[in-house]
Amino acid sequence: MEKLSSDRFPNDTEEKILQRLRKIEGQVRGIQKMVENDRYCIDILTQIAAIQAALDKVGLSILKHHTYGCVTRAIQSGEGDPVIDELMDVIKLFIK
Amino acid sequence: MEKLSSDRFPNDTEEKILQRLRKIEGQVRGIQKMVENDRYCIDILTQIAAIQAALDKVGLSILKHHTYGCVTRAIQSGEGDPVIDELMDVIKLFIK
Amino acid sequence: MEKLSSDRFPNDTEEKILQRLRKIEGQVRGIQKMVENDRYCIDILTQIAAIQAALDKVGLSILKHHTYGCVTRAIQSGEGDPVIDELMDVIKLFIK
Amino acid sequence: MEKLSSDRFPNDTEEKILQRLRKIEGQVRGIQKMVENDRYCIDILTQIAAIQAALDKVGLSILKHHTYGCVTRAIQSGEGDPVIDELMDVIKLFIK
Repeated sequence: MEKLSSDRFPNDTEEKILQRLRKIEGQVRGIQKMVENDRYCIDILTQIAAIQAALDKVGLSILKHHTYGCVTRAIQSGEGDPVIDELMDVIKLFIK
Repeated sequence: MEKLSSDRFPNDTEEKILQRLRKIEGQVRGIQKMVENDRYCIDILTQIAAIQAALDKVGLSILKHHTYGCVTRAIQSGEGDPVIDELMDVIKLFIK
Repeated sequence: MEKLSSDRFPNDTEEKILQRLRKIEGQVRGIQKMVENDRYCIDILTQIAAIQAALDKVGLSILKHHTYGCVTRAIQSGEGDPVIDELMDVIKLFIK
Repeated sequence: MEKLSSDRFPNDTEEKILQRLRKIEGQVRGIQKMVENDRYCIDILTQIAAIQAALDKVGLSILKHHTYGCVTRAIQSGEGDPVIDELMDVIKLFIK
């Protein structure tokens, strides 16, 4: 199991993911300004929840790419077990 | 209920929150590089889960500040209801 | 801070909560049968997610009752701090 | 994609899952008694969070079984796509 290389993301998937991540980066910067300007806490918290939801979406799309790519190939070559275990471990991180 | 002003964060709380948010911003940029460099999906996902956990912490510390400040004052002046409803609504966003 | 007694739930709130909990109990029993009958995993998982959502709803409605009752009274009598800390701790359990 | 039949759980896995589900069922009944006896809300909420964590564990162990079984076989026979999509959809339910 090679851990450092990965499937290339298809160009359009990669671009979509990067766009989302740049937007999330901007939202995190926006929250910093809200905190500095003593904006209403509930508005800050609503923004944080929006970022969490956006990160979930990015996470799910990377998870899907990974399952269609690495996981599928590992299973096809009869070496699915470690990759499935690893997949379960990372899903656990998102669930708890 | 005034929605745009807020309690000032105490200076040290504000600084701690801002430090965490700057770190989170850096982590989000880090993930962009990981995606561009086709790093292993599981490593990217692990980083995303770390950011989620960091955002939860920031969220909880703002929630606490808000409850000790706005919510407490509203209750003391006999006007707790709308503030409590609003608090529940934002907690709901974090739970689901 | 008295930890063992609590505000009575208003009768209709209590009945609603109990109805939901009985339904959840039935759903948990239903999942046992699905497992025994080797039902399709995805269908079992979908049911488990439905129970989680139902428990979130019950949790939120108890949290609301608690904040309107115990928390509000503690704040009004100038003893809000330990009750707020405790509230934050339990919210943390639901968020992570 | 056959949706109603499933891999049999290995006997010991099935028994472990059923034991957990029976324990969860008992916990849900326990919460009903706590509500009826007007027990302290925070204690009820702590119990609800414990049930959620227990359901997450059961869910993850069924997810693992499913991925090692159905998903693996579908991929090996060149028909992984619908099963992977379905897997992602159910993971989504647990994450949000």
